[in-house]
Amino acid sequence: MRAPLIDNLQYANFSPRIFEEMHDGGVDAVHVTIAYHESFREMVLNLERWNRWFEQHPDLIFKGRGAECVRRAQADGRTAIFFGFQNPSPIEDDIGLVEICHQLGVRFMQLTYNNQSLLATGCYEDDDTGLTRMGRQVVTEMNRVGMVVDMSHSAERSTLEAIDHSTRPIAITHANPAWWHGALRNKSDTVLRALTEAGGMVGFSIYPHHLAGGSDCSLSSFCQMVEEASRRYGADRLGIGSDLCQDQPDSIVEWMRVGRWSKQMDYGEGSADNPGFPAMPDWFGGNLDFGNIRNGLLETSLTEDEVDGIMGGNWLRFYEDSFGARP
Amino acid sequence: MRAPLIDNLQYANFSPRIFEEMHDGGVDAVHVTIAYHESFREMVLNLERWNRWFEQHPDLIFKGRGAECVRRAQADGRTAIFFGFQNPSPIEDDIGLVEICHQLGVRFMQLTYNNQSLLATGCYEDDDTGLTRMGRQVVTEMNRVGMVVDMSHSAERSTLEAIDHSTRPIAITHANPAWWHGALRNKSDTVLRALTEAGGMVGFSIYPHHLAGGSDCSLSSFCQMVEEASRRYGADRLGIGSDLCQDQPDSIVEWMRVGRWSKQMDYGEGSADNPGFPAMPDWFGGNLDFGNIRNGLLETSLTEDEVDGIMGGNWLRFYEDSFGARP
Repeated sequence: MRAPLIDNLQYANFSPRIFEEMHDGGVDAVHVTIAYHESFREMVLNLERWNRWFEQHPDLIFKGRGAECVRRAQADGRTAIFFGFQNPSPIEDDIGLVEICHQLGVRFMQLTYNNQSLLATGCYEDDDTGLTRMGRQVVTEMNRVGMVVDMSHSAERSTLEAIDHSTRPIAITHANPAWWHGALRNKSDTVLRALTEAGGMVGFSIYPHHLAGGSDCSLSSFCQMVEEASRRYGADRLGIGSDLCQDQPDSIVEWMRVGRWSKQMDYGEGSADNPGFPAMPDWFGGNLDFGNIRNGLLETSLTEDEVDGIMGGNWLRFYEDSFGARP
Repeated sequence: MRAPLIDNLQYANFSPRIFEEMHDGGVDAVHVTIAYHESFREMVLNLERWNRWFEQHPDLIFKGRGAECVRRAQADGRTAIFFGFQNPSPIEDDIGLVEICHQLGVRFMQLTYNNQSLLATGCYEDDDTGLTRMGRQVVTEMNRVGMVVDMSHSAERSTLEAIDHSTRPIAITHANPAWWHGALRNKSDTVLRALTEAGGMVGFSIYPHHLAGGSDCSLSSFCQMVEEASRRYGADRLGIGSDLCQDQPDSIVEWMRVGRWSKQMDYGEGSADNPGFPAMPDWFGGNLDFGNIRNGLLETSLTEDEVDGIMGGNWLRFYEDSFGARP
């Protein structure tokens, strides 16, 4: 069977047209965000919307639960959709909701989204106090049930403590190395080494604020960064987490940044002059364009097997090890 | 493999001691009530409590999802626990919650508990207006996902309309024939014929208010009723739904009857003189006592195969046909 194609982070304004593009682009699995700031009860409404899409478009998409769903998607020519939270808000202050959410299909949860959470510190806070008391308990529970700890929007110390405390490999589903582009959201070499040495995965983001040169970043610059990361961390620890926000109105980036936690606007990685979603680079606008990345990576010194791994094989191996209850 | 033993309705004050009794009594599967008047969010807290029990007592119980879990329970010497609602309150006014609840493991839902609900009319209302607009939609959705319509506490017309509207067999999980004991909660011959002719199942209750003679009902009277029911409806449509409320304090029967829908006490099948749980008959006090029923049935004209079916085989066949998505 051909190598799988997996995008391990999207928050598009999903629609039948985008599901068609996933199909036409040969995308076998996508990890989609189903909560930013939602309570448990609100998140359930987002699950219901996905259930309707699964019911209405069974020829294109289905709910992913385990790694075997990726293989099934490849065989069927469909796309398996895996759920994740960018924020732990849906588990509220209740550790029992970790297992409930896993039973509902949630496979990734960020411990924090930019701000301090009940579990850890986000990358925009002034002080990073690491995992909280509840954070340690929740990581242990996530390890037990098979929900992946995602530290994409977390601060340095919190991330290192999560890597250390977790007894199963964790992920940074969508970020790039700070040594390539020094954005607050990108990750230090220290974090990326600790993550990958513990068996964890990093998914490279194509969100322009995470790219050297922003929207003008070239494909070759991106691919050279991946090549360098493979030298530092091993090609088998790398994947794609595009952070694709296709078709989203700018009101959504405001929701992502501010939720209900502030009455004042926070521009996050943007600014008052540039408050909306940035333009995507010309070589990646959606699910039809993964071939560009693959071709770009093949022009580096990476082998075809390594490129196959980065385009999906590595995530599939990680799914196999991560989504079941601890053996 | 020996015939399975299934009790298709309990609302005991569950505890490790009762789980031990299920094991010692050879009970392979129990359908337990996890909601009477709870909202969705409150019901999730009840699921969490069960998740803790499953985590803490994996040697005794596990969560049942499909008929294969009963076979696994038999092989392991454990008890598979299947979830059900006695009231549709957890789906609130949202048809999408049917599938969410099914994903969380719920396999039975009563359309009403004594009162008028959003879906149908309960057996204590003066006027029975049958399935509501939402009721018809929800029955269709339950048919789609594989959640069994249970009409144990529903009124006559509503029950007949549910049997007629449902495209899959339904159940009356815990009630007895009104021709044996004319309680408001027991079912007419018309209902029981329509139910069973459509492939549905009735589970005989041992809750004293449903028994001829109440707490003093004899085992032979109960077994003769089952024998007569098998002549009328076919032995393969019959099972047990004991309605066991073991170890529950009387505050619970008040919650069952009044919930939050009234500021005045409603005594249900009891009375001001007899407001609490009635005493169980001396031949059935809990999970250790199913052998008494089996032995009593074997003293009637029923064959051993028929008795095996009534003690669990019929419910197992019904589970096989009912809990999956419509093929």
